[in-house]
Amino acid sequence: MTQEPKYKLASRQWKKNNTVVTAKDCQIGGDELLLIAGPCAVENEQQLDQIASFVSGLGIKFLRGGAYKPRTSPYNFQGLQKEGLELLKQASDRYNLGIVTEVMDLSLLDTVYPYTDIIQIGSRNMKNYHFLKELGKTDKPIMLKRGMDATVEEWLLAAEYLLLGGNDQVILCERGIRTFDTSNRNTLDVAGLALAKELSHLPVISDPSQATGNRNLIRATSLASIAAGADGLMIEVHNNPTDALSDGPQSLYLDQLQDMMPDLARIAAAMNKTFSWQKQPEIINA
Amino acid sequence: MTQEPKYKLASRQWKKNNTVVTAKDCQIGGDELLLIAGPCAVENEQQLDQIASFVSGLGIKFLRGGAYKPRTSPYNFQGLQKEGLELLKQASDRYNLGIVTEVMDLSLLDTVYPYTDIIQIGSRNMKNYHFLKELGKTDKPIMLKRGMDATVEEWLLAAEYLLLGGNDQVILCERGIRTFDTSNRNTLDVAGLALAKELSHLPVISDPSQATGNRNLIRATSLASIAAGADGLMIEVHNNPTDALSDGPQSLYLDQLQDMMPDLARIAAAMNKTFSWQKQPEIINA
Amino acid sequence: MTQEPKYKLASRQWKKNNTVVTAKDCQIGGDELLLIAGPCAVENEQQLDQIASFVSGLGIKFLRGGAYKPRTSPYNFQGLQKEGLELLKQASDRYNLGIVTEVMDLSLLDTVYPYTDIIQIGSRNMKNYHFLKELGKTDKPIMLKRGMDATVEEWLLAAEYLLLGGNDQVILCERGIRTFDTSNRNTLDVAGLALAKELSHLPVISDPSQATGNRNLIRATSLASIAAGADGLMIEVHNNPTDALSDGPQSLYLDQLQDMMPDLARIAAAMNKTFSWQKQPEIINA
Amino acid sequence: MTQEPKYKLASRQWKKNNTVVTAKDCQIGGDELLLIAGPCAVENEQQLDQIASFVSGLGIKFLRGGAYKPRTSPYNFQGLQKEGLELLKQASDRYNLGIVTEVMDLSLLDTVYPYTDIIQIGSRNMKNYHFLKELGKTDKPIMLKRGMDATVEEWLLAAEYLLLGGNDQVILCERGIRTFDTSNRNTLDVAGLALAKELSHLPVISDPSQATGNRNLIRATSLASIAAGADGLMIEVHNNPTDALSDGPQSLYLDQLQDMMPDLARIAAAMNKTFSWQKQPEIINA
Repeated sequence: MTQEPKYKLASRQWKKNNTVVTAKDCQIGGDELLLIAGPCAVENEQQLDQIASFVSGLGIKFLRGGAYKPRTSPYNFQGLQKEGLELLKQASDRYNLGIVTEVMDLSLLDTVYPYTDIIQIGSRNMKNYHFLKELGKTDKPIMLKRGMDATVEEWLLAAEYLLLGGNDQVILCERGIRTFDTSNRNTLDVAGLALAKELSHLPVISDPSQATGNRNLIRATSLASIAAGADGLMIEVHNNPTDALSDGPQSLYLDQLQDMMPDLARIAAAMNKTFSWQKQPEIINA
Repeated sequence: MTQEPKYKLASRQWKKNNTVVTAKDCQIGGDELLLIAGPCAVENEQQLDQIASFVSGLGIKFLRGGAYKPRTSPYNFQGLQKEGLELLKQASDRYNLGIVTEVMDLSLLDTVYPYTDIIQIGSRNMKNYHFLKELGKTDKPIMLKRGMDATVEEWLLAAEYLLLGGNDQVILCERGIRTFDTSNRNTLDVAGLALAKELSHLPVISDPSQATGNRNLIRATSLASIAAGADGLMIEVHNNPTDALSDGPQSLYLDQLQDMMPDLARIAAAMNKTFSWQKQPEIINA
Repeated sequence: MTQEPKYKLASRQWKKNNTVVTAKDCQIGGDELLLIAGPCAVENEQQLDQIASFVSGLGIKFLRGGAYKPRTSPYNFQGLQKEGLELLKQASDRYNLGIVTEVMDLSLLDTVYPYTDIIQIGSRNMKNYHFLKELGKTDKPIMLKRGMDATVEEWLLAAEYLLLGGNDQVILCERGIRTFDTSNRNTLDVAGLALAKELSHLPVISDPSQATGNRNLIRATSLASIAAGADGLMIEVHNNPTDALSDGPQSLYLDQLQDMMPDLARIAAAMNKTFSWQKQPEIINA
Repeated sequence: MTQEPKYKLASRQWKKNNTVVTAKDCQIGGDELLLIAGPCAVENEQQLDQIASFVSGLGIKFLRGGAYKPRTSPYNFQGLQKEGLELLKQASDRYNLGIVTEVMDLSLLDTVYPYTDIIQIGSRNMKNYHFLKELGKTDKPIMLKRGMDATVEEWLLAAEYLLLGGNDQVILCERGIRTFDTSNRNTLDVAGLALAKELSHLPVISDPSQATGNRNLIRATSLASIAAGADGLMIEVHNNPTDALSDGPQSLYLDQLQDMMPDLARIAAAMNKTFSWQKQPEIINA
């Protein structure tokens, strides 16, 4: 990699110091470890409220939740859509949580925009270059998930599309690539994450839930991501994973999320990252 | 694969006989072998006219050409856009050629719709489910390219999204999947093509140019595709590949396309497919 | 690929004309299409005799059959070993068939050598360089299967190890590579096969049985392989696939093999390859 | 994965508690973090002595070094062979280091056996089942590298071959799998490592050097491996990487290894692993 990279604005050559993105009064890409938690999909008020209350009680500052869901099969749950966005807003207001939710298509941008603090670009859209150009014109932080068939260079070139549009508040998110080994849903690429940190000044977070598809591996891969240099984690958690309408097997139970917090704290400290949390008095799994 | 498939309308269980799609008075998926040829991108009037004239002279009935180009790098040629569509129309009128061109984003559908006979959905959009739902409401034939990280089942589920929308004029297009071997740009999956023909009633064509990225291999992979059961081929050809603004190395020279025709005819005949062509009096490579 | 290849003796630059390998009075890599058929594993005398009789009756000249079987699980059938070799010899003598069987380890070379006409190197051994060096010192034709994680260049470098040892009777065999798509057991790489033919003078054959793992796709992928330029095919066939001790699902029934012959003949003819066969009076599926 | 695993002796169901392997008076798979360091290949006495002296001075207890090297090209350095083994012994005696070196072929087992404390099975041999059966009869600890095209299940089945032979001193080593992304040499699969720890009682270590092929990423991927639960690391280091006869780009400089030690210590502590080292008074890079 001694030659000039194909991207410019996204490169370390262009900007030596780490970019720090500000969302909901938090600094992402700086000293603090970012945590985003929440269900795969918003399902109903009670579900989201229980999860949001718990997540916020732990001291986590961002809530994730899909309102519009990209699903491989048209016969699967497609999300609550507009109603899901309203529920996210309710939860955000009640628990003072930042919201991270996906814009699945340009035609949905205006609808989703007012409801989210960080605009999520899903892995299936990472190579939708027309979409990226238009998203680059927005003025909110964007989380760009790596495509499951994207090289690190292609990922940074996708970020370049956003940066060229004028939006410099871009967060990269590693979420596993597709390989021959179906032991896990995807293969979490911590070396790719570390490489992205080396080649680019943008913050990089990790999504161990999408990467592994297996709640038993979330702890190990979360710790590995932080140790590899991730600026944060996005983790799926559900009050009742067994009955989740999507991605149940990869969702943590509420108490599993809490049980993981001391481990995250220890590894974050070892990596010189700030991280704080509070123990919840009582766990309510549905 | 003895269990029920996850898709329904796209399956052979649902519809036993081959679907035959009609576009520009041609039957696709029936006895005749479909040929689509043209440049990767429309570059200018002279380029497109020379190619269209040659392609049409050979007896080929469809012209391909990108007006809006999805490019990995924002610094690469992004297509002539509206002007490119006009040039396609001109060529279509002058040489009575059907047009195949891509709709890159929902916001471009209305613009592109009147100019194309077959709406191309690019491989990067195969998993854009919101996009697929909307495209399913159109009334023109759609060519759905396989995503480079899509299993055969996911490809058929994407077709299901289109069929559920009401559009049953769907043509599948195998264009290579992404694998560890970078000897070729992608790995043409002829067994996947044959499997799609077995599991589904929809026509399946092959794009050896995108699959190999190497003009030296177009002949062999075109023949292999027909022998595997493809209903047609989409091939990139250029009057001056060396100066092409995109994908030059995989574009055939005009005379290479002509040189391949007798081979295509022989394999098509061996597969009981109708195929006719006429020798061009004179080759004009730019 | 304009730069000098890393291999030399295996390259077209070194030897322009196709290498023709002679085994059991047959020319491999010349005008005639090679056919090798037989069971995955030799199981017992009756099984092998029925298959050999049928295969030979069709006019096929080579019998395949594993005596020592590399199996992913130690709890699966490991082959009849020495007894399997004896059964192969019996069948060879009785039906005048050439034998193709694998040498799994250097320590088995002396044992297997007298029983085989073509020494098979399995895909799992393609990168065993010490093994290749020793095999290169033998004086019988060698069929080198491509590793399922090997690039075309690595495959040709493995051939180079054999050629450097002094054995120039090397046949390459494409058998599918490992990719994310588990729809088929492996992904048959016909473009890689065509590329190997372009870069090297060595004969290249195809193994659609290992590649697809699915008997329903053997016909399509066999035809595709010939159309891509393969010099021959190796196909698994069994008198009773349902009860086969290994790889039953990918083994053709005897009558399926016969049913395929007219198709093979037509595609072979279209590719200017000699191919002849005789109809069997009566099919005996066990 | 609720069904019975295909392997038995390697499974957690069979043996609940972690296996602890003893080599050169060290416990592997217990509380202590194992470190193995050394050059890719033994090149000459001065090279090995300088590296061994440094490695031992840091408090590292095992020296790696290839005497017989599996190389993709026959024209590359193939190792010092017997002489390399003698140099390893010298270094071992002089600095009281345990030796880890590869047995490339069964025919080399008797030669290599007396020189090594841990027998390394290379990734290219992970599916050589005849080889595994014979190695299972030995009585020294074995480090079984994961094949670059092996699923976690296939890796554990390979271990099962060894365990069935009677050798229960098996250490698994994750070294990256082969994927479409060539940004890094291979893709380090930390989730696969964590999954192997969950499914099996055997110790699992990580080889970030082979996995990334890039010395700039060794620190991040070493830390990630420990955080994912690895019982140890095997790291390539060279006194003069620029002139290394193999794998120079992935070899750490001596001082880079030392610079990493405090980070390793911190992450090891956060994971409750024992780890100690001493600062070297003076760094000698050649």
